Amino acid sequence: MEEKVKQIRHSLAHLLGASVLELWPDTKLAIGPAIDNGFYYDFDFSTPVTDKDLGKIEQKMRELLKKWKGFEKTDVTQKEAEKTFPNNPYKLELIKEHADKGDKLTTYKSGDFLDFCAGGHVEDIKEIKKDAFKLDRVAGAYWRGDEKNKMLTRVYGLAFNTKEELEAYEKQMAEAEKRDHRKIGKELDLFTFSPLVGPGLPLWTPKGTILRNKLNDFVWELRKKKGYEQVTIPHMTKKELYEISGHWEKFADGLFKIKTREGKEYALKPMNCPHHTQIFNHIQHSYRDMPQRYAETTMVYRDEQSGELGGLTRVLSITQDDAHVFCRHNQIRDEFYAIWDVIDTFYKTFDFKLKVRLSFHDPKTFEKYLGTKEIWKNAEETLESIAKEKGADYFIGLGEAAMYGPKIDFIAKDSIGREHQVATVQLDMNLPERFDLYCINEKNEHERIVMLHCAIMGSIERFSAVLIEHLSGNFPLWLAPVQIKIVPIRENHNEHAMKIAEELKALDFRVNCDTGSGNMGGKVRDAKNNKIPYTIIIGDKDIEAKKISVESRDGGQLGQMNLKEFIEKIKKEKESRK
Amino acid sequence: MEEKVKQIRHSLAHLLGASVLELWPDTKLAIGPAIDNGFYYDFDFSTPVTDKDLGKIEQKMRELLKKWKGFEKTDVTQKEAEKTFPNNPYKLELIKEHADKGDKLTTYKSGDFLDFCAGGHVEDIKEIKKDAFKLDRVAGAYWRGDEKNKMLTRVYGLAFNTKEELEAYEKQMAEAEKRDHRKIGKELDLFTFSPLVGPGLPLWTPKGTILRNKLNDFVWELRKKKGYEQVTIPHMTKKELYEISGHWEKFADGLFKIKTREGKEYALKPMNCPHHTQIFNHIQHSYRDMPQRYAETTMVYRDEQSGELGGLTRVLSITQDDAHVFCRHNQIRDEFYAIWDVIDTFYKTFDFKLKVRLSFHDPKTFEKYLGTKEIWKNAEETLESIAKEKGADYFIGLGEAAMYGPKIDFIAKDSIGREHQVATVQLDMNLPERFDLYCINEKNEHERIVMLHCAIMGSIERFSAVLIEHLSGNFPLWLAPVQIKIVPIRENHNEHAMKIAEELKALDFRVNCDTGSGNMGGKVRDAKNNKIPYTIIIGDKDIEAKKISVESRDGGQLGQMNLKEFIEKIKKEKESRK
Repeated sequence: MEEKVKQIRHSLAHLLGASVLELWPDTKLAIGPAIDNGFYYDFDFSTPVTDKDLGKIEQKMRELLKKWKGFEKTDVTQKEAEKTFPNNPYKLELIKEHADKGDKLTTYKSGDFLDFCAGGHVEDIKEIKKDAFKLDRVAGAYWRGDEKNKMLTRVYGLAFNTKEELEAYEKQMAEAEKRDHRKIGKELDLFTFSPLVGPGLPLWTPKGTILRNKLNDFVWELRKKKGYEQVTIPHMTKKELYEISGHWEKFADGLFKIKTREGKEYALKPMNCPHHTQIFNHIQHSYRDMPQRYAETTMVYRDEQSGELGGLTRVLSITQDDAHVFCRHNQIRDEFYAIWDVIDTFYKTFDFKLKVRLSFHDPKTFEKYLGTKEIWKNAEETLESIAKEKGADYFIGLGEAAMYGPKIDFIAKDSIGREHQVATVQLDMNLPERFDLYCINEKNEHERIVMLHCAIMGSIERFSAVLIEHLSGNFPLWLAPVQIKIVPIRENHNEHAMKIAEELKALDFRVNCDTGSGNMGGKVRDAKNNKIPYTIIIGDKDIEAKKISVESRDGGQLGQMNLKEFIEKIKKEKESRK
Repeated sequence: MEEKVKQIRHSLAHLLGASVLELWPDTKLAIGPAIDNGFYYDFDFSTPVTDKDLGKIEQKMRELLKKWKGFEKTDVTQKEAEKTFPNNPYKLELIKEHADKGDKLTTYKSGDFLDFCAGGHVEDIKEIKKDAFKLDRVAGAYWRGDEKNKMLTRVYGLAFNTKEELEAYEKQMAEAEKRDHRKIGKELDLFTFSPLVGPGLPLWTPKGTILRNKLNDFVWELRKKKGYEQVTIPHMTKKELYEISGHWEKFADGLFKIKTREGKEYALKPMNCPHHTQIFNHIQHSYRDMPQRYAETTMVYRDEQSGELGGLTRVLSITQDDAHVFCRHNQIRDEFYAIWDVIDTFYKTFDFKLKVRLSFHDPKTFEKYLGTKEIWKNAEETLESIAKEKGADYFIGLGEAAMYGPKIDFIAKDSIGREHQVATVQLDMNLPERFDLYCINEKNEHERIVMLHCAIMGSIERFSAVLIEHLSGNFPLWLAPVQIKIVPIRENHNEHAMKIAEELKALDFRVNCDTGSGNMGGKVRDAKNNKIPYTIIIGDKDIEAKKISVESRDGGQLGQMNLKEFIEKIKKEKESRK
C-alpha cells in the first residue's frame, strides 16, 4: 500500500473511533488499522450496532472531519497512558505489551478524541477527501483474532485518495460479485461441495473436470516441448522423509498426520519436492543425463483452519501442476528461461498481463529459513540477474521467500484489474544438500546440483477460480465444457439434429443435442445461460438448404452456413486456443 | 483345489511330520495343512533345522512312504486326545479349541505316527506318487500367524497328482522368477521404492509413468466411446461420509484416519464410491439424464500390514481405474454389456484369456454384509443371468462378494499359465439406499436407482505387475517407454542420427539417440537389455544409400529400409496396439 493512502486510511480509523464515541459514549475501543481497501475499527459496544447504523456514523464522521485540524502527538509514560484509558481492557493490554517491548509510547489527539497510537496519520487533514471514503459493513471479529477471546464488532470503511478511485473500486467490486467463481461455478455446474465430505474439499463434476483436464493438458503440452517427463508419487510418506527435508518441523501445523495400525507415523504430502528427490536419487546420474525434469499434476494436502476455507480459492486438497528440475549450476539460466517461456505462452493465451515479484528472504528473520546466508545470497543474485536479462516488470518482495529458497512469483492482472499471484519458480539449494543430490561430473567427481521448483497454474483450484472470474465463465472454445448446443426447432427435426451432433462428436467436439420436450426459446436461453460458445438451430429451412443456422456466444448471429464451413471455422478456433 | 490333490497334499504333511519326528524325536509338531502348490508343517525344533536338512528329511519321507499302509482313524475324547500329546502346547491348544467348539475329535495313525487331525487323507496310499512331491524350503512362521507368539520353523513341500504336473509347476516357477516384475521393473527402470517414503508406496519413474499413463489412456479411450465422463474428487473426507456409507465401521482397520488441528476426524479414501455419490446427488436428475457414468483414475489408500507389502502386488497407494454408473433398474443389462465390451477389448489386446467368477455372498456369514436378503437375492440373480446371456466361462464364488454387493470378477490367465484376478464389475443396491440416490421418473416420482462399480485394470500397480510378468517386459510398441533406439556407428554419424531422432520425435515417437562415448556393440546390447522394440543403426553405408538399418526386438534383423517406409510400419503397429 502506498504510504500516503495508508495515512489517509489510518486517520479515518481515528475519525471512525471518535464518531462512535460521540454516538455511544460507553463504547470501548480496541484497534483501528488501515487495510488494503480502507480501514476498520473494532469496538466493544454495550448496545448492538448493525449495518443500519452505518449512515448515522458516517454522517458524524463528516461532521467531525470539518472540525478536526490534525493529529497532536504526545509522548507518554506507561502510567500516563494507562490513566488515559482506565476502563478499557483492550487499550490497557496494548499499552502493557508495547511498554514490555520497550516501545516509545504515544497518544494522538484530534478534536476531543484521544487514542493510544504509534502514529502514521496524514500531515494535512485536507488530504482526506470527504467523498473518497464511505463506511462499508459491520462484522464480528474476535479480539486479536483468537476465538477464545471476546467477539467484538468490526466496522469496515472504504477509503482512497480520490472520489474517482473509490468509485472505480466500487465498480470493480460490483463486477467481481457478478463473476464470483462460486456463483458461476454453480450456474455452469463445474464443481460442488458436500457437507459429508467437508469444506475445502471440492468435488469436480464432469464439466468441471473437462475444464481442469484441458488446462492441465495445455500446461503439459508446453512442458513436453521443453523436455519434461512425467513421474508419479503417492500422496503420503513416512515421517522420515520430512525429517530430512525439514518439513516435519517447519511445516508441522499444516501437516495432516497419520498413525498406521502398526503405530508408524506418516503424513499426507503438503508438497511434492521431497518425494521427487527420491526418484532423482534412486539411481546415480552422469552429467550427461542432466538436467532431469520431472512434472506431475497431483493433489497436495494442507491442514488449513476451516474458517479460512471458501470456494476454490482456499482448499484442503490443492492440485498442483508441479515440476522439479534437477540441474547443474551452469544450467540454471537455460532452465529458468524455458519455464518463463511456458508461463508467458500460457498466460498470454488468456490475455492476462504478468508482473514479476522476486520473493527474497527477510534478513530480519533469517532464523525462519533453512540454509546458510551464502546459499541465499547466491540464489537471490542469480534470480535478479535473470529477471533483468528478461526485461521483466519486476519488483523485490522481502520476506516473501519460501522457507527453503527464494522464488520468482508471477502476478497476473485480470480483466477487471485485480492482481492474482499465479505461477512460481523457485531456486532451491537446500534440498539438494539435505538429500545429498549430485551428479557425476566430467572429472568423475560428485557434483552438488540444484533444484528448481515450478508450477505454471500453481493450484488448479485457485487458478480455475481466477480464470472463471477473469472470463466471467465465457471459456474459449477449446476449454468450454460444452462447445456446441444443437437445438431442433420441432420434434421432426430431432433426427437431423442428432445426425449433425454425431458428426461433430466424431471430430471430438463436445456437443449437447437438446431433443428434450421444452420449446426452442427456452433451449436457446439455456445455451446462453450455460455460456456455450456456439448454438446451432435446425429447422425446415436449414434442412432444405442443407445448411445450419449458427449463433455465436461472442459474435452474435452468424446466419446459415454449410456444416463443413462451420467445422473448418471451429477447428481453427480450437487449435488457436483463442 | 481339487479334492484328490488336496488329500495327497495333506497326507504328505503327515508324512513330513512323521519323518521329522524320526530324525529329531524331541520336536514339537504344530499344524500341517495342504496349500495351493503342496503342503507344509510347522515345527518347534530344539536344534535349528535349515534348507540343508531338506534332503535328509525327504529321504526319510520316501522310506516311510514305502512302509505306510494308510490312515487309521480313531474317535477320541478330549482327555484321550490330551493324553496323547502331553508335552505339546500347540496340539493341546488345538484340542481344547475344537473341544470347546463341540467338534468331533479324531486322531489318525500311519505307521508309528499319530496325529491329532480332522481327516482329509488319501484313501489309497498309492495315490501318493514318490516322484510327484519334493520338499521346497524352510521358513520362519509365527504360531497361528501372530507375531506375539513363538516363531516356529515351517517346512514347505511341493506336491501334485503326477510327476509331470510337478515338473510343469517347477518350470512355471522358474519362468516366473525370470520375469518377476520387481526384477524387470528395476532393469527397465519403471519404478522404485525409497526407505524414507516407505514400503508399499511406489515412486514411478518417467519410464514407468509412460507405461501407467498409456494403459490408463487406453482404458479411458474405450470408456469414452461408451459415454463415460470424468470426475475429480479429493483423497480424503470427513468421517460423516463413511458413517453413512458404512465404511467407518466395516472398513475400520483398513482406514488411514486423520485428526485435523481443529480436532475434526477425517479419513483417506479406501474407495471412491461414497465420494461419487455426492457428485451424483448434488443436483436432481431426471430419468432423461440417466445413466450417469463417472470415471476417475485416482489413488485410494488402505492400511495394510507392512509384512504383506511386496513389489507392486500389494501397496498402500492403489491407483484404481475406477468408474461408477448410476442407472435405473431397466438399464443394468445394457450397462453391464458395455463394460464387458471394454474389458474384452482391453484384455484381448494383450492376449490374456478371461474366466469369470460370480462373486456372491456366503449365506453362512450373512451378518458380514450390508443390506437385506432380498436385495442380495435380486442382485445375484441379475448377475448370473447376464453371465449366461454372455456365454461366459463362469463359475460361482460363494463368500467372494464385497461387503456391499455381489460382483463379477474377471480372471486373466497369463502367458505362463498363472491366473490373476483383474477387472471387476459390481452391482450395488445398498449405497443408493444409504445415500438416498434417485431420479425423477416419467411419472414425476422419486425412483430408487442402482450403482455399478467397475474397474478395468483394477489397480494399475497390480495390473502393471501382472502385465510386466505376462510380457516379460517386452511391451508392445504403443506401450514401450522407449520405442526406438538410434545407434550411430561412429562419432561422425551422430549428426545424421540426431536428425532422424528429431524426425521421429516430431511424430510423437519415444526415441533414445545414443551419441554417448560407448562403442556400438555396447549400445546395441543396452537396447536389447532395455527391451526396446526397434534399434536403428546409422553408418556410412546407410547415409550413402539414404536408408536406415533396422533391428526389431521381436523380428530380428529387418535390414536396410527407407525412413519413410519404417515410419509407415511403426505407425500402423502403434495404432493396432499389437
